This record gives sequence, C-alpha cells and structure tokens, in this order.
Amino acid sequence: MPRPIGKISVVAVGKIRTRSWLAAQKEYVKRLGHYTNLELVEVKDVVGRGLPDEAAMQREGEQLLKAGRKAAHIVLLSPEGEQLDSPELADFLQGRIERYGRIAFLIGGPLGFSPEVIAAAHSQLALSRLTFTHELARVILLEQLYRGFTILNNEKYHK
Amino acid sequence: MPRPIGKISVVAVGKIRTRSWLAAQKEYVKRLGHYTNLELVEVKDVVGRGLPDEAAMQREGEQLLKAGRKAAHIVLLSPEGEQLDSPELADFLQGRIERYGRIAFLIGGPLGFSPEVIAAAHSQLALSRLTFTHELARVILLEQLYRGFTILNNEKYHK
Repeated sequence: MPRPIGKISVVAVGKIRTRSWLAAQKEYVKRLGHYTNLELVEVKDVVGRGLPDEAAMQREGEQLLKAGRKAAHIVLLSPEGEQLDSPELADFLQGRIERYGRIAFLIGGPLGFSPEVIAAAHSQLALSRLTFTHELARVILLEQLYRGFTILNNEKYHK
Repeated sequence: MPRPIGKISVVAVGKIRTRSWLAAQKEYVKRLGHYTNLELVEVKDVVGRGLPDEAAMQREGEQLLKAGRKAAHIVLLSPEGEQLDSPELADFLQGRIERYGRIAFLIGGPLGFSPEVIAAAHSQLALSRLTFTHELARVILLEQLYRGFTILNNEKYHK
C-alpha cells in the first residue's frame, strides 16, 4: 500500500523565541520533509498587546484561518480535543491525508481559539491533559507528526 | 502558607544526546533551582547493548532504584500512570513534598520498568497518551515541574 504524503500546514500563533525549542523545531521540520510536504506558518500574536482580549483573539483567529484556508481539513490543537495515542495519531494522519490531501493543524495563542475558528474546524485533538507553552506544544506536535510518519512507513524510531 | 521546597530527584535511563533537548533540559534545571533542590541523575542505558531484554531491563531497574533510594516517595513516569492536568500536578507536588520531603521521579528506558521497580514505586503518572522519546519525556517532565512550582508560588508563567 502506498504511504500517504499529502500536504500538512502547521499554523501557529507567535514565534518560538527559546533557542532550544527553535532548534528542536528546525530538526523536526527537516525530518518531516522526508515524508510529506510540510509548511510551517507563524501568524502574528495579538493577545496581550493592547487590544481587548476578545478582539485580539478574534484577530489571531482570522489570521489562523487565512493561513489554513488551502487545507480541506482543519485540525485544532485544544485541551478539549480528543486524546489519541501515537498509533492512533498515525491512523488519523493517514485517513485525513487520503481523504483530504491537504490538512492544517492550528495552534492557538494563550487565550485559545475564537468562536469563528472553532466553528471552521473539522477535528480537535489534545496532546495531553497538561498545559504546555505554545512553543512546547508546537515542538511536541512536530515530533508526533514525525513519529506518525515513521509508524506509517514501518520505520524504526526510538522510544 | 509557606511554599514547599523539598528535594526532587529526576532519575532517568540514558543520556540526552540531541543538542536541542539538552539545551532545554539545562534551562529548566536552572529554573527549577530557584524553587527546589533538584537533582538530575542519569543511569546507564543497558537495553539494546547485547544483554537479553529482560536482564537489561532488570539492570536498568536496579540502577534506577539505587539512584532514587534516598527519596521517601517514588513516582514512575509510565503510559499506564494517572494523567493529571497542570494544577493537579502542582497539588501532587505540594502534597508529596509536605508529606515526604524528598521525592524521586523515575523515567525508564525503551522497554519500561522492571517488575522490581514497579513494586517499589508509590505513584505512577502519565504525561500523555502519546509516546515520547525518553529525551522528550524528560524535558516535558522538567517543564511541568517548573510549571508546577510557578503555580504553587502564584507566579505567572505563559501558556
């Protein structure tokens, strides 16, 4: 069976500033490039910069949806989402790529997603019950996408 | 109410080799030093180096228990453990430190823990349903311990 390739957009609010997470991100973006067409988009963080919270969250939401608009399937990373284990995430990836070709994973800012983003999303996944910084959440997502592709390609990847 | 300080040992199988995770570990070990007496111990990884799996896991287990023996409360990081959210983890930390003073978090190798380690442990916690590399699991644990202490100290730490 041919392994899915597809296109995956990871769209996140804000930049990673911590050097160690930046290095981890770079590593996993590179590794993912062997398996899929990965696009990483950072939209401007607006929350905490003077606008009222709701307006700021809405502005971030507009940018997220604009950046993810080419994807036929939008997945939110949210504490309220479904928790999959790694083989389930691999199945999820395979199924969504086969069906939709291009999928987007959206990572929100500190206040989460605006109602418009939640309404536009097709799936919601949670990485953990724990709260992570947006930087760490992004790195974990990239690592798990990579792990997912190694599972789908029957490749060894250490635990 | 005085905030708990205690002593925390993080005992893990193997060394972190990836440079970005090493940098993240260093950062969080430094930050945790403001709140608690943190000791990070790496024991030698034995699995996958020639010994039969069970004997290797047992050898790793002996080292883990030896390194954690000064702690009055031993916590395993295990996929079968209880999943807490971050405020619950902070409560867990506070309660265990107040009661036991010194606690140890054990992170196993790729095959998990030997029966002896499981029998000696007092609690088991899971970070997620996802499978992480031992390097990433360690970094996430350190980050969450740090987050826990910021919660207990009513300090702001970004999401």
